[in-house]
Amino acid sequence: MVMEKQQGQIDFTAEEQALKEKFLNLKKASGSHSPSIFTFKQKLPELDINVDACFLSNPYATDLFLKYFTEEIISTGKIRELLEFYPSQNQVIAEILADFLKVDASQIFIGNGAIEIIQAVIHNFVENKILINIPTFSSYYEFVKPGIEVVYNNLKKANEYRLNVDDYVKVCEANKPDTIVLINPNNPDGGYIEHDAMHSLLEKLSWVKTIILDESFIHFAYENDKFDQINSADWVSKFPNLVIIKSMSKDFGIAGIRAGYAVMAKSRIDLMLQNGFLWNSNGLSEYFFRLYTREDFANDYDKVRVRYIKETIDFIEKLKEIPGIKVYPGKANFVMIELLVPGLTSFDFVTALLVKHGIYVRTCNDKIGLEGEFIRMASRTAEENDFMVKSMKELLSDF
Amino acid sequence: MVMEKQQGQIDFTAEEQALKEKFLNLKKASGSHSPSIFTFKQKLPELDINVDACFLSNPYATDLFLKYFTEEIISTGKIRELLEFYPSQNQVIAEILADFLKVDASQIFIGNGAIEIIQAVIHNFVENKILINIPTFSSYYEFVKPGIEVVYNNLKKANEYRLNVDDYVKVCEANKPDTIVLINPNNPDGGYIEHDAMHSLLEKLSWVKTIILDESFIHFAYENDKFDQINSADWVSKFPNLVIIKSMSKDFGIAGIRAGYAVMAKSRIDLMLQNGFLWNSNGLSEYFFRLYTREDFANDYDKVRVRYIKETIDFIEKLKEIPGIKVYPGKANFVMIELLVPGLTSFDFVTALLVKHGIYVRTCNDKIGLEGEFIRMASRTAEENDFMVKSMKELLSDF
Repeated sequence: MVMEKQQGQIDFTAEEQALKEKFLNLKKASGSHSPSIFTFKQKLPELDINVDACFLSNPYATDLFLKYFTEEIISTGKIRELLEFYPSQNQVIAEILADFLKVDASQIFIGNGAIEIIQAVIHNFVENKILINIPTFSSYYEFVKPGIEVVYNNLKKANEYRLNVDDYVKVCEANKPDTIVLINPNNPDGGYIEHDAMHSLLEKLSWVKTIILDESFIHFAYENDKFDQINSADWVSKFPNLVIIKSMSKDFGIAGIRAGYAVMAKSRIDLMLQNGFLWNSNGLSEYFFRLYTREDFANDYDKVRVRYIKETIDFIEKLKEIPGIKVYPGKANFVMIELLVPGLTSFDFVTALLVKHGIYVRTCNDKIGLEGEFIRMASRTAEENDFMVKSMKELLSDF
Repeated sequence: MVMEKQQGQIDFTAEEQALKEKFLNLKKASGSHSPSIFTFKQKLPELDINVDACFLSNPYATDLFLKYFTEEIISTGKIRELLEFYPSQNQVIAEILADFLKVDASQIFIGNGAIEIIQAVIHNFVENKILINIPTFSSYYEFVKPGIEVVYNNLKKANEYRLNVDDYVKVCEANKPDTIVLINPNNPDGGYIEHDAMHSLLEKLSWVKTIILDESFIHFAYENDKFDQINSADWVSKFPNLVIIKSMSKDFGIAGIRAGYAVMAKSRIDLMLQNGFLWNSNGLSEYFFRLYTREDFANDYDKVRVRYIKETIDFIEKLKEIPGIKVYPGKANFVMIELLVPGLTSFDFVTALLVKHGIYVRTCNDKIGLEGEFIRMASRTAEENDFMVKSMKELLSDF
């Protein structure tokens, strides 16, 4: 008996269907996050991943870091001391960053990845009520302790999930949260609020006790044709309610090292260091932080940052030409894409990319606040981007 | 005018005196812990450290780890993915350890070093009153949140700071703490409670809500002439009040990687993972944990563990022959030493070892609960140990 194919249905072979089931289980076990590439290797060794576009990083920055790391640490044998000895304490590493960020060391907190800082900030500073825009990075609400009220501000699909600053101020005033979260550019849609607009938003929200501003993707945003880096760190001196969180995993392509920092009022940092966070860096992250502030590396890094932004813009333009999808506007190193083919689900599409093309992108079907079938796709190397565009076209040509 | 030398006073040249001042400032800035070797390099570049015996690790295990790491990660180019991609989540790594430790994965919590687990356990499980034996590792009381009562049980100098199990049960019963801390072997003195004695102590203390048993130095303890490894992990199934914490930094000589784990009841782990600790491992620690459970590595490791224990025993015997000091009994990879020369301070002695011989050992003058002038000294390679014995003799021969 020949089954009639339903609208939007993707054909999977028996083998692909088996992989799909396993992938579904892996995804479930990872909660609202995605299984890592190592988890895939352990649990789904039969799967070949060619492009990891679930992970949001600049591969050219990884190349650059590896070049320095190989020359200075591997070839010299210094790797031994990085592995063997205790890294420096939090405030010693903060001192290394201080001049570079143009803020006082006492205003810098070093984290084992931004995720540790998100956890610490949510646990230490949220008092009774936190306002979170959705869609968002789920840890912001998942890390909230029991007994605290979470108010969701659902960004409007009609406005392409962009934050309207004036509306937002009204939502804050109506709900009176003690803590609010702003991710700029936002994850998963990449929506970006310009530097000046963010500054005036902060001025209007000076009555909020804690404003968490997550700038983990800020190195990919741009406001002029030179793609100059945007730096908000010195705002913390003006806004004592501001906590800026910065992951290094995305812009520097080093998620495996776990490096992040935050800038905030000294009193907040003192509170956290008073009973914890002693040796939360590791030998590699300490090396990275020292490198990050060096002029030679900083100059090299800026070149690969700009190259990657330009290629990302090209990638997004090519994606926009593919029929059957809508590419949402943003200024991050990824795009949120809505699947417009009736009946085609995000999970099926992501699975097909994975098992048929070895491309790993993120389904957004676990993201609260999205209406429709969405995926999130990172920009990778120009070559990988072209492969992704081609594969997407191929998959969608069936409909 | 010739100044008369005071009893116990060490002669420092002007240059050495300047280094001493700087060292004192570094030490003060590190609180109750010691500045790292990287901090030394940054702040005191004029100082040459030949032997770091402040840091408590098996250097042969570092060699072994480096051998595997070089062959499998550096030479193959796999280092790139370890640096680039997100590590697996906590429970995925716990699964890797489960069979090896013979406990269920749901009872294993992975930490960014044991220190992160100490922080998490102290913050999550201590309710009102914690009983801590002193001298101890200071984080156990420093990480206690405001409002919680800390009761110190001062181990007796007359008993060489050894824990008397019967006395301890009485102290617990008299104070009724909800949480107690046992470090076995203890830091800084190395005092060891045998496996069976610990088991019966746990049986007597089943009414205590949380018993933290820190076994970070357990790989250096021995109870028979084959130096068999002691494993208590399966006790957590029998004692739901037990939380076993295990650093990997000491026995495997990899403090820079930040790897530790804890074994405890599933309900406790669920509580912690519910709102945090998502990606607290890094690429290197994930590799290490996978390696740790492999038979080939485990066999090689056990050889260097036994070699190191034997050399440590030799080192301690040689130290015991040096006049002017008392070596305290213990079964760790370090010894606590009391300086018996009248007027000779621990800080002066440690500084002299550092600036005159390049040997970095730990002054215990910031340890609460010790009566007298104490230092803590790690065992290193046989060659380094001999150099330390020779240098100690030389310094003490002046008195």
